[in-house]
Amino acid sequence: MKKNICITLGDPNGLGPELVCRLLAGRKPDRAFLMIGPANSLEYHLERLGLDLFYEEINDPKQIVGAKAGYYLYCPEKLKNFKLNIGVAEPEGGRGAGEALETAVQLLNDKIVFGLVTCPLNKAMLQLAGFDFPGHTEFLAERSGVGRDNVCMHLGGPKLKVSLVSTHPKFRDIPALVTKERILRCLDLTDQLVKSLGLEQPIAVCGLNPHAGESGRIGHEEIDIIEPAIKEANAKGLNVEGPFPGDTIFYFAAQGAYSAVLAMYHDQGLAPLKLLHFSEAVNITLGLPFPRTSPDHGTGYDITGTGKASLDSFKAALETAEKMVDA
Amino acid sequence: MKKNICITLGDPNGLGPELVCRLLAGRKPDRAFLMIGPANSLEYHLERLGLDLFYEEINDPKQIVGAKAGYYLYCPEKLKNFKLNIGVAEPEGGRGAGEALETAVQLLNDKIVFGLVTCPLNKAMLQLAGFDFPGHTEFLAERSGVGRDNVCMHLGGPKLKVSLVSTHPKFRDIPALVTKERILRCLDLTDQLVKSLGLEQPIAVCGLNPHAGESGRIGHEEIDIIEPAIKEANAKGLNVEGPFPGDTIFYFAAQGAYSAVLAMYHDQGLAPLKLLHFSEAVNITLGLPFPRTSPDHGTGYDITGTGKASLDSFKAALETAEKMVDA
Repeated sequence: MKKNICITLGDPNGLGPELVCRLLAGRKPDRAFLMIGPANSLEYHLERLGLDLFYEEINDPKQIVGAKAGYYLYCPEKLKNFKLNIGVAEPEGGRGAGEALETAVQLLNDKIVFGLVTCPLNKAMLQLAGFDFPGHTEFLAERSGVGRDNVCMHLGGPKLKVSLVSTHPKFRDIPALVTKERILRCLDLTDQLVKSLGLEQPIAVCGLNPHAGESGRIGHEEIDIIEPAIKEANAKGLNVEGPFPGDTIFYFAAQGAYSAVLAMYHDQGLAPLKLLHFSEAVNITLGLPFPRTSPDHGTGYDITGTGKASLDSFKAALETAEKMVDA
Repeated sequence: MKKNICITLGDPNGLGPELVCRLLAGRKPDRAFLMIGPANSLEYHLERLGLDLFYEEINDPKQIVGAKAGYYLYCPEKLKNFKLNIGVAEPEGGRGAGEALETAVQLLNDKIVFGLVTCPLNKAMLQLAGFDFPGHTEFLAERSGVGRDNVCMHLGGPKLKVSLVSTHPKFRDIPALVTKERILRCLDLTDQLVKSLGLEQPIAVCGLNPHAGESGRIGHEEIDIIEPAIKEANAKGLNVEGPFPGDTIFYFAAQGAYSAVLAMYHDQGLAPLKLLHFSEAVNITLGLPFPRTSPDHGTGYDITGTGKASLDSFKAALETAEKMVDA
């Protein structure tokens, strides 16, 4: 029997519940999937779209243990009274996302569920609802006991997979975050990921400075920090190469020469990734005690209920979580 | 009669003379083109490739004034004794490139020629030969009297065109270069370029911080510097929008929503550009008193003479120079 997977509905007023209904209503499950969030958010889209009920609601999440393949919904007590306001950014949506996530991470910690796909939430609404986290990643890192510094953000599409040494600091703060320890941790975690996906090409590491510093002529972080980290990774047996100029390495990676690229910062890695895989990349948090994926887009309040949203990224997130849970 | 264009052969030991022979020997000229560099570098490839002599050598560059459509070569006195060493990086190659460029910029300043296409040189060899410039751009900016701070580096491919506010500083020095003055100058120059190419969509401006600062939550350069620059550009009548997150704007620009993107720094703009246009982008120096383009690749010593080098970027550089000279 395959390990079950949990899906949080994210902000109930955003795209999450719509994507879940559109994708899962017509998809045959090969295992038990436990959706967590307010029941009325799913019911709204089912009725709107004229879809049959495709899931069974359960009152105790432990019922998912040993459950047969299928889709299940658990609506936490605190969300029974959720006030739906489709397409609107308001703190109630942040509360819906936060409470679902609290429940999910408890079930993951208790090994009642084994993988997590998170639908989008709005960071500002999450915080207005009293959850003091900049986003999913930090929420999960803290609640799972791993800590924010020990996870690595990864975005993967069919041709290009990118891990980030730093995520959302101010630009000026990036150099201080480029440390040997962070690079080594990200390489370790990325290596585990690409192996779990059956990929065998090396991981490419970007430089920080233009042209990867041109042998020290344009900055010294490559010589002082990045090259020693790569050497140490190689000594541990990791198949890692670099540092490469950040402007050219993504072309070669997209051609298949590398399993993944480790970028030093957000725009260096995600500008090429999103150019190639705008609506099909999957966001993966590496370093958590459980696989966690999410679609690479936001709540899309403005298009919720219009049918315009692409299912590609959510579908890829679900399939990647399945692969990782089964690996 | 169409305005003539000058082509410097770059490092004679690198790809320049080969690309010139392979492209121009079979290409009908619509104007006079004046090539500058050592004659033996062209003769070597003509013989190797079994090509007919496609150009006329002239002894005084002023003979190009009023010359009929065709290809012409001027070998400066100092390069008559050039020691050819194909595929090898050595100071003699830097001397060859530097002397040709000195001659070209003099002819441009004297309005004997009207546009410039430069073949690749090796920066380290140029400097070893005694030319104290980091590259073509700075050489031309100084020798034409414009000054290094008044030019803007631009790379353009068929789908994506990118200007850079900063070019090759250390990563840590980037924020200090992101000033309202530089942004405005680059916007002005990019606006002139896209208009000369007949493009009518707005120019998109990137933020500096991840997610363009998220309204000040991740850094303040967008609010303090970039937004005021955009407002001032709009007030001057320029069709400019932003600041946009650097990870997503290139996707929309490549779809045709923008004529060009102004990136704040090297990897932010060139990682997506080179992913999409690896061997077909043209490097344009904006702000010089004359149009100047070059292929977006280096000397390629290792493949010089093998026939492996793509002609695409050099061809695009030549065609772009023609368009700009005629505009």
